[in-house]
Amino acid sequence: METKISIRDKTLIISDKKTTFIGERINPTGKKSMARALANGDLDFVLAEAKSQVEAGADVLDVNVGTPEVDEVKLLPEVVKLVMNEVDVPLCIDSGNPAALEAALKVYEGKPLINSVNGEEKSLEKVLPLVRDFGAAVIALPMDEKGIPQDVSTRMRIADTIVDRCDKFDIPLEDIVFDGLALSLGVDSNAGVTTIETIRQLKEKYGVNITLGASNVSFSLPGRDVINTVYLGIAIAAGATCPIVDVAKVKEGVLAADLILGRDRHALRYIRYWRQRQRMQAN
Amino acid sequence: METKISIRDKTLIISDKKTTFIGERINPTGKKSMARALANGDLDFVLAEAKSQVEAGADVLDVNVGTPEVDEVKLLPEVVKLVMNEVDVPLCIDSGNPAALEAALKVYEGKPLINSVNGEEKSLEKVLPLVRDFGAAVIALPMDEKGIPQDVSTRMRIADTIVDRCDKFDIPLEDIVFDGLALSLGVDSNAGVTTIETIRQLKEKYGVNITLGASNVSFSLPGRDVINTVYLGIAIAAGATCPIVDVAKVKEGVLAADLILGRDRHALRYIRYWRQRQRMQAN
Repeated sequence: METKISIRDKTLIISDKKTTFIGERINPTGKKSMARALANGDLDFVLAEAKSQVEAGADVLDVNVGTPEVDEVKLLPEVVKLVMNEVDVPLCIDSGNPAALEAALKVYEGKPLINSVNGEEKSLEKVLPLVRDFGAAVIALPMDEKGIPQDVSTRMRIADTIVDRCDKFDIPLEDIVFDGLALSLGVDSNAGVTTIETIRQLKEKYGVNITLGASNVSFSLPGRDVINTVYLGIAIAAGATCPIVDVAKVKEGVLAADLILGRDRHALRYIRYWRQRQRMQAN
Repeated sequence: METKISIRDKTLIISDKKTTFIGERINPTGKKSMARALANGDLDFVLAEAKSQVEAGADVLDVNVGTPEVDEVKLLPEVVKLVMNEVDVPLCIDSGNPAALEAALKVYEGKPLINSVNGEEKSLEKVLPLVRDFGAAVIALPMDEKGIPQDVSTRMRIADTIVDRCDKFDIPLEDIVFDGLALSLGVDSNAGVTTIETIRQLKEKYGVNITLGASNVSFSLPGRDVINTVYLGIAIAAGATCPIVDVAKVKEGVLAADLILGRDRHALRYIRYWRQRQRMQAN
């Protein structure tokens, strides 16, 4: 299935032809320097992060400004506008505050991703009208007011609800990007199985595009990079198509997964990446 | 399914509860130093390799002495005897020469793996009687006189033939370990898809244990380690349970895959590996 998003007149297609990188770094959660920059209105810092992610290969940038110190309704559209003028990739507008989403959607030029809706009634009621009215695509989390389900069948039941409700708003399936909801393996060593199986079933049942935030699966464990890399490979093989990641850190592993899964004819993309890397190291 | 092999009175169970490492390094193919050692009868070199693989975490050692310069029928049993006395892990007796296999089986103490039988009539006729008579387990390659099939359905048809013929010899399914037949992605960028899908179908249809030699998938490509690591992760998620590998190189990625797939309660095995590694680096 193809999910089309855009920035101005430039369209990006998310599909299983190759993995789309959504850059995660404009987000204050767990990043003190970003939280401080946002609280102080140091938007140069934010823009530098935007540029470096696109240089590293981000196809989409997630933009989240949510910290207790800021007024998201005011700041989110401001940051979206600035980032949009700095880089030429579509944005994923990320907030738990529907008013902030709406304010940012108003200034966005193109068709963005909205991050996110979930199965909670108040989320469905507030977010889906925005998706429809602004003609956006949306990341859907198969969780609800009880939190993130630890079993696959509850996640699938909530996914069914979200798909039904989107249908009532005439939001087509291709504009829903599900999130596999990756949790830390350091907290629950069964968390990986649940997420991978959720991805597999979502793909089988709906054929939709699937994202996941895989950077935290290794939280509190040693050897984090290898866990993140292998996790992404397995998740992509199961059906994840557009993970939210620290691109610079995971790019080679994701390109390897695409190659292994037959999405890189003659390995051209993988080889080009390594040549570029070797050139940069030589300079 | 559980495949049991042994060395003397020590049994090893191969299953999907955790990945079994079969050490690949006692094999002259593409390794000049090993080929030279075997040709010169320098068996200290071979034994050092055996010990270092077991120290790195090999659960089984593949033993292959096939080079044009040596008499395998004489050398294979000799090396098997020496290695068997040096280490306490079961061996995988590896030769394309049935007379050499038989000579080695005669000296082996325990239940070994035989590497390998394939769908060719003369292989079935020569190797399966040895598997039966010596009560061994066997690695089965889903290929025949025409070589390695590039499509999954031909591989599965040959696998069916091998299973049927084993049945006629009263060799139970649990004593067959199929090989997914990994080929180089540098030669054919679709090779990964075929292998992964073969593994998936073999697992689904027969529930058997599955090996693969994943070190050569990255041959001729840059960034080989990351390809090998991600490839193994995806293959293990698809059903591979006992890859033939350079253990020291791939151990952390395979342990990560086991953790992600829910086979490492509380991540104890993964954490223990890293502690050990840190201790060794500190010394």
